[in-house]
Amino acid sequence: MNSAPTSPLTPSTSPRFAILVAGGSGTRMGAGRPKQFLELLGEPVLLHTLRRFTEAALRVQECVVVLPPDQFASWQELCEQHQVTIPHTVVAGGHSRWASVRNGLAHLQGQAAGTVAVHDGVRPLVSAAVIEATFAAAEAHGAAIAAVAPKDSVRSVSQQGSFALDRSRLRLVQTPQCFELTLLQRAYQLPELSAFTDDASVVEDLHPIQLVPGDYRNLKITTPEDLVLAEALLRSSIH
Amino acid sequence: MNSAPTSPLTPSTSPRFAILVAGGSGTRMGAGRPKQFLELLGEPVLLHTLRRFTEAALRVQECVVVLPPDQFASWQELCEQHQVTIPHTVVAGGHSRWASVRNGLAHLQGQAAGTVAVHDGVRPLVSAAVIEATFAAAEAHGAAIAAVAPKDSVRSVSQQGSFALDRSRLRLVQTPQCFELTLLQRAYQLPELSAFTDDASVVEDLHPIQLVPGDYRNLKITTPEDLVLAEALLRSSIH
Repeated sequence: MNSAPTSPLTPSTSPRFAILVAGGSGTRMGAGRPKQFLELLGEPVLLHTLRRFTEAALRVQECVVVLPPDQFASWQELCEQHQVTIPHTVVAGGHSRWASVRNGLAHLQGQAAGTVAVHDGVRPLVSAAVIEATFAAAEAHGAAIAAVAPKDSVRSVSQQGSFALDRSRLRLVQTPQCFELTLLQRAYQLPELSAFTDDASVVEDLHPIQLVPGDYRNLKITTPEDLVLAEALLRSSIH
Repeated sequence: MNSAPTSPLTPSTSPRFAILVAGGSGTRMGAGRPKQFLELLGEPVLLHTLRRFTEAALRVQECVVVLPPDQFASWQELCEQHQVTIPHTVVAGGHSRWASVRNGLAHLQGQAAGTVAVHDGVRPLVSAAVIEATFAAAEAHGAAIAAVAPKDSVRSVSQQGSFALDRSRLRLVQTPQCFELTLLQRAYQLPELSAFTDDASVVEDLHPIQLVPGDYRNLKITTPEDLVLAEALLRSSIH
């Protein structure tokens, strides 16, 4: 017996970071405030998301919240109102999701190594298990994202009409999307393309993307009914 | 002025039929009963669906419910218990969705013409507006299905890895799927293929498929959380 065995199950000690992107202006929700600030069981959506990423077991060292600059004051007020003591840094968003992530990443440029999770601020129901699995897969393979199989048939549409795709070969992409920090930094030095809809699409020309099973509960709050759904899911998991 | 003007907005008088397909055994839900019989605000899922299709304004002449034969007795008991007086015909399902729809269609073989909607029995939240729009598009073009754009990024997976697809060219397929009756009858005379995941895929080699905007609320109840979501959506639309 060794006196100091090293188990392959020892968790990685590489530092972990998170960038929570919340760029919504709220116009699409038809509500008076941006969707990230809407109340979900009495607390802003973004606060739920922040709590999920700062659970101690996940060992996230620094959490960067990216917000439009004109929402800084509202967020600060909400944090005071809800007595939020969770350490996090607020960084100004840009003209697009890509620019917002790039700004969040710039805040981490002093870090030499580690793994960074990028997550939609309006996905407040993400589980610790999915966050952990995505971090772990990125620590092992460099790039990993949470995704689920579509429950519905999928069709491709074109000028000529529409045709069925093989849904067993398709995945609906969620967040978190986790990357080796230096890989994501390199990817975000390339110019922005209109085809970028998420971070995997920014990285995929540089590095293969691992898919990790996501969770159908990991809703993105984009429409008023999503808020109803999120509340129902939260209530059902409480009781 | 004409004394008897005919407006182009006069609704079609071609007869309308509906086939509600409910083949679930309930094992996937982990519940004691098939998902189509689970209670949603006090009534079986399938009864909600049946009510939606038999709203008078939709002018559906005959509603065929396709069920596994070993569920006939349970459905009859549920109908008695809930004092259901909605006329409908129960037909035995087959070994697959394709076989079940074919059996439902066989029941309509005496009909010379008309339009038939095929709908998942476990989509109880479909709106009258979506049903009407899909019937109307099929009456105009022969084949029409309800579909929505994916909210998430979509990736295609293969042995070589995964790559991003252009989600603006993709649609998630729902039901109802409506067809000129004789067209659907011809399509179901062809042999079953493993690629058939819905009726549009059965018909598409014979006739182009029109896409009609569906509704994100038109959930398919396939997992326990879907039932929680459906209840929340129903409650929010009541108040």
